[in-house]
Amino acid sequence: MTNPADTLYDDIRDLPIVSPHGHCDPAWFASDAKWTTPTDLILTPDHYLYRMLYSQGVSMQEMGIGVPADQKDPRQIWRLFAAKYHLFLGTPSHTWLRYMFNNTFAIDQPLTPASADAIYDQIAASLASDAFRPRAVFERFNIAALATTDAATDPLVHHHAIAASGWTGRVIPTFRPDAVLDPMDDRFASSISDLAQITNCDTATFEGYLQALMAQRAAFAALGATATDHAAEVLYTCWLDDPATYYAKALDGTITRAEAAQFQGHMLVQMARFSCDDGLVMQLHVGSKRNTNKALFESLGRDVGADIPVATDWVHGLQCLLDHCGNHPNFTLILFTLDEATYARELAPMAGHWPCLRIGPPWWFHDSAAGIARYFDQVVETAGYWNLAGFNDDTRAFMSIPARHDVWRRGVAQHLGAQVQAKVFDLSDARSLAPLLATQIAAQTYRL
Amino acid sequence: MTNPADTLYDDIRDLPIVSPHGHCDPAWFASDAKWTTPTDLILTPDHYLYRMLYSQGVSMQEMGIGVPADQKDPRQIWRLFAAKYHLFLGTPSHTWLRYMFNNTFAIDQPLTPASADAIYDQIAASLASDAFRPRAVFERFNIAALATTDAATDPLVHHHAIAASGWTGRVIPTFRPDAVLDPMDDRFASSISDLAQITNCDTATFEGYLQALMAQRAAFAALGATATDHAAEVLYTCWLDDPATYYAKALDGTITRAEAAQFQGHMLVQMARFSCDDGLVMQLHVGSKRNTNKALFESLGRDVGADIPVATDWVHGLQCLLDHCGNHPNFTLILFTLDEATYARELAPMAGHWPCLRIGPPWWFHDSAAGIARYFDQVVETAGYWNLAGFNDDTRAFMSIPARHDVWRRGVAQHLGAQVQAKVFDLSDARSLAPLLATQIAAQTYRL
Amino acid sequence: MTNPADTLYDDIRDLPIVSPHGHCDPAWFASDAKWTTPTDLILTPDHYLYRMLYSQGVSMQEMGIGVPADQKDPRQIWRLFAAKYHLFLGTPSHTWLRYMFNNTFAIDQPLTPASADAIYDQIAASLASDAFRPRAVFERFNIAALATTDAATDPLVHHHAIAASGWTGRVIPTFRPDAVLDPMDDRFASSISDLAQITNCDTATFEGYLQALMAQRAAFAALGATATDHAAEVLYTCWLDDPATYYAKALDGTITRAEAAQFQGHMLVQMARFSCDDGLVMQLHVGSKRNTNKALFESLGRDVGADIPVATDWVHGLQCLLDHCGNHPNFTLILFTLDEATYARELAPMAGHWPCLRIGPPWWFHDSAAGIARYFDQVVETAGYWNLAGFNDDTRAFMSIPARHDVWRRGVAQHLGAQVQAKVFDLSDARSLAPLLATQIAAQTYRL
Repeated sequence: MTNPADTLYDDIRDLPIVSPHGHCDPAWFASDAKWTTPTDLILTPDHYLYRMLYSQGVSMQEMGIGVPADQKDPRQIWRLFAAKYHLFLGTPSHTWLRYMFNNTFAIDQPLTPASADAIYDQIAASLASDAFRPRAVFERFNIAALATTDAATDPLVHHHAIAASGWTGRVIPTFRPDAVLDPMDDRFASSISDLAQITNCDTATFEGYLQALMAQRAAFAALGATATDHAAEVLYTCWLDDPATYYAKALDGTITRAEAAQFQGHMLVQMARFSCDDGLVMQLHVGSKRNTNKALFESLGRDVGADIPVATDWVHGLQCLLDHCGNHPNFTLILFTLDEATYARELAPMAGHWPCLRIGPPWWFHDSAAGIARYFDQVVETAGYWNLAGFNDDTRAFMSIPARHDVWRRGVAQHLGAQVQAKVFDLSDARSLAPLLATQIAAQTYRL
Repeated sequence: MTNPADTLYDDIRDLPIVSPHGHCDPAWFASDAKWTTPTDLILTPDHYLYRMLYSQGVSMQEMGIGVPADQKDPRQIWRLFAAKYHLFLGTPSHTWLRYMFNNTFAIDQPLTPASADAIYDQIAASLASDAFRPRAVFERFNIAALATTDAATDPLVHHHAIAASGWTGRVIPTFRPDAVLDPMDDRFASSISDLAQITNCDTATFEGYLQALMAQRAAFAALGATATDHAAEVLYTCWLDDPATYYAKALDGTITRAEAAQFQGHMLVQMARFSCDDGLVMQLHVGSKRNTNKALFESLGRDVGADIPVATDWVHGLQCLLDHCGNHPNFTLILFTLDEATYARELAPMAGHWPCLRIGPPWWFHDSAAGIARYFDQVVETAGYWNLAGFNDDTRAFMSIPARHDVWRRGVAQHLGAQVQAKVFDLSDARSLAPLLATQIAAQTYRL
Repeated sequence: MTNPADTLYDDIRDLPIVSPHGHCDPAWFASDAKWTTPTDLILTPDHYLYRMLYSQGVSMQEMGIGVPADQKDPRQIWRLFAAKYHLFLGTPSHTWLRYMFNNTFAIDQPLTPASADAIYDQIAASLASDAFRPRAVFERFNIAALATTDAATDPLVHHHAIAASGWTGRVIPTFRPDAVLDPMDDRFASSISDLAQITNCDTATFEGYLQALMAQRAAFAALGATATDHAAEVLYTCWLDDPATYYAKALDGTITRAEAAQFQGHMLVQMARFSCDDGLVMQLHVGSKRNTNKALFESLGRDVGADIPVATDWVHGLQCLLDHCGNHPNFTLILFTLDEATYARELAPMAGHWPCLRIGPPWWFHDSAAGIARYFDQVVETAGYWNLAGFNDDTRAFMSIPARHDVWRRGVAQHLGAQVQAKVFDLSDARSLAPLLATQIAAQTYRL
């Protein structure tokens, strides 16, 4: 008897990719310039890779992080990586790389120190061909839509260029205003200034600041954006009587840490209210403590692999925002957690009640075969399938996108197939749910 | 080779139902009046159903919640439900309803918009027959005992009527004193007044209040009650030097929120001490934040699906109560959690030490096939089987009772069968454990 | 087709045992005296056993705990245990005992009240033979190395005796300084005094105290120690400007509880810095609330089964220590948790970044078949295999050691076999990982 999971996987394996949240560089598709080296394309942008190597004694310098381009040897870095590739056994990075080697670059041997040079050369040869220019790969990957993530003050020149180019690939921006909402962010003052300049609003007043934010939301939407994205280490939302006072303190640098948290909590609710008006879907990524390795942060800056999850309290943290907007028919809020203890305890019960809420897919460290299995196991019985947000790959590693969606689709098929075998529902139900989970619900949730 | 889970399920499938905790209406069995419509019996009492529908944009009004009886059309509500039935795929509600349709009402077609009217009519025809009067169904369900949950101030007229009727069905009350223990409960003042009236005690003094509580516990026990039930959002227990002072403030409305928490924490310990004396089994349901949707609460009141779990700290929260009563040989305390992170971390280690403790079955959002599997996986290795409390259905949806016990029994069989296959113990051990878990341990724990 | 798990288990089943952390008594191997009774060897040292019996109404006295040797009847205790043996069905204790009965004592009948005496006699007869002296059993168990746990002030007379005896069995101490680091420990004052005496350092000054600690670390290392071990209920680390002031208050008994926590947090960082210098691997066991049963603690003292886990925050708790030593190439820190919610949320991401960190195996209540499965499921995808610390049995029940390692090895084989079946990697990869996880990585991590 055929395993129902196999049938379900066959149904969805080749569906177009919907990628509504990620961190690819829009410049690739604006310029359509060839990528340079395998190392720069595959290794350097992927913090999953160098964090693991660092944990096993490989320095950031050896991996070329923080090294000027003219002082690093991409082939040498590739060889080092090949020598350490076994460290990734059992991790999703291994699965993604293997998929990419096999499927995208038609490499039929495993990466080892012995094969490192040959594989490097084979990939380099591919990248030198027109068939591997960004737009061609985008099309071969069968991507229906790809959202980038862009600062609220970004002039979106690459997105303008893509739109002006006549290319039909759908690459859209996402409005990410963290730096203009958090007075403790070291980019706050300069970002507010940028915001004034790009919108021509008077951000010296709170009213002008709100107008500027609305203007930029509209500018993003005009280029196809359907969503905003917000991050918080500790979730807190509130509604202040006098946000203008806090804003003035934020501007002149006299705001305390506690007041800044209040202001940011108020602005999250304000953003939700804007979403009720303009229909941009709100995303909330909570629980990552950033840059916990002080020595690395001071020498190399942000995003070098030392972001670590902390426990999250969705119920109390989101209460004020939900009081304001939770029942609004035009509002969609997608919640992403790094604290799996909240799947069954908080997120599934909340999404199973509030009309606005959708549960984001397993995020970051949990975007993996076992992480996906735990997610379905813990959220579906309470939230059902229609309160999920579908999948997104959340990656800056463009070449890994098909592999990541493939892991999700296999996970969908495994989960639904097991439910069929347990007689929770029958195969015809599962065959309607599989494409829903593979792509449709993501497109619906993000209003694509 | 036969799957041992199949053998085990066959062993226990048809055992009588022991239902030691739930929320059925004793009036049904007192009057034995026919139920009215399928909608009023099956949909309206079931907050699992309308919370999911609400999350997908169906208003409470459309489902008839808060609508006067003469202004709602039960058939129309049924049709709406049928149109949205797919939303429940993968949830226990779907499993329960399917079981009830198939087994209780002998319906052999799935519920769809096309079949909605026919199924409605078939159920309505059943309900119009004597065979579907409450007592007849109770007997056909093979229920050995059914506990209801009743306010401490309830005069228990229906339980008196059942006792007086000569009917042999065992329907017993459970003493639920939340409203007279928590000064912050909006029913506190009126409930204390009711308590005085029903017991003829002088509840103006703390001493009289304690006497009244003891008197009502005895009155419940006289009608067959074997248990009390207590709820707390945040677990806290303590022993005050001067509870009378707090009580006086509670009565005259000058008590602060912090003092009220202290008083309630003291009274939980007091209730445990009463249980040591009178032998009523104490149940503690912790971690539900009630009525989190303010707009719905203000328009429709309690229990409209917006109760959400929060994290629970059993170790510190229960310390004082255990200091007082934890080693008492006559004391049984059953703990129910909505925070599965506490299964392996706190509840199993605690129940594996304290003689009084039993771990309640998966509760509410976790009463499901996967929730049951996680429960066994996480509690048994530390607590063993004899420190579990067995199953209870905790439902106000009477028609779902056999379905809920069936899901548990299947879960028992799956778990034990897997242990047999993993050679943790052999099939003969499993065949002695299966009926223990299906019914015996619940009867023992609740002293039925 | 052969199940890959079977192949993998066959590969590793008979490898030597590496036991780098545990609580066996070194006196056994120093004197090599015969053990006395089955009860004293198997039941009395095992708090897993009497905690479960206590939870089911067996008193500590009945089990002989706290009873003078001349007033207890070991055979009677054995019979009582046999009568209650079914309570352990489904727990790892049952698996361990069965393995020991079958494999170590060649007993082929199950323990029941009827067989209790015969089994007692058979074990007693074995223990009376030279083949069951401690060193002979150690060798038959094929133990490559066994670490004990010893107070920082321990004169290590038994370890000296073992070294002097010429016996080749490798039994090494572990430096456990809790009592000299925590001013709230009731053994603090006497332990500091012992420390002065044993090292000849002037512990009246903070400088002398640090010198004494360094001296004892060196004394332990000279006897083969490769590791230290530290416990904390709540994890906290900090670096004080004036630790000497705190130390002076600790000595004269005027330190507050809050200051004591600061001092202990400082000393944990100090210990990490010592490890950077002397290369002793640091172990941190966090999250056990000790002696929660006040009545038992007052009558019987420590370690009578009422230690219960509490939630742990590794990210904030470890920050200061990692700021100081996290990137040091000579530092290894092994983290043990009782809060499985931290596996995927904190420990795996942290170990997947920091070069010093290794994740300890499932500890205590989680050292079980299902606990091991959850561990692999939740840590490997983020941390990989090389950031794990391998297995240790952490036991004072010497006879259970082979059984405990066998449960781990079966868990390794099950996990890796399932990965092979899911095509995460192939069987040849799994066959290189299996011995790594069974013994090699433990030996490497502990620098054995």
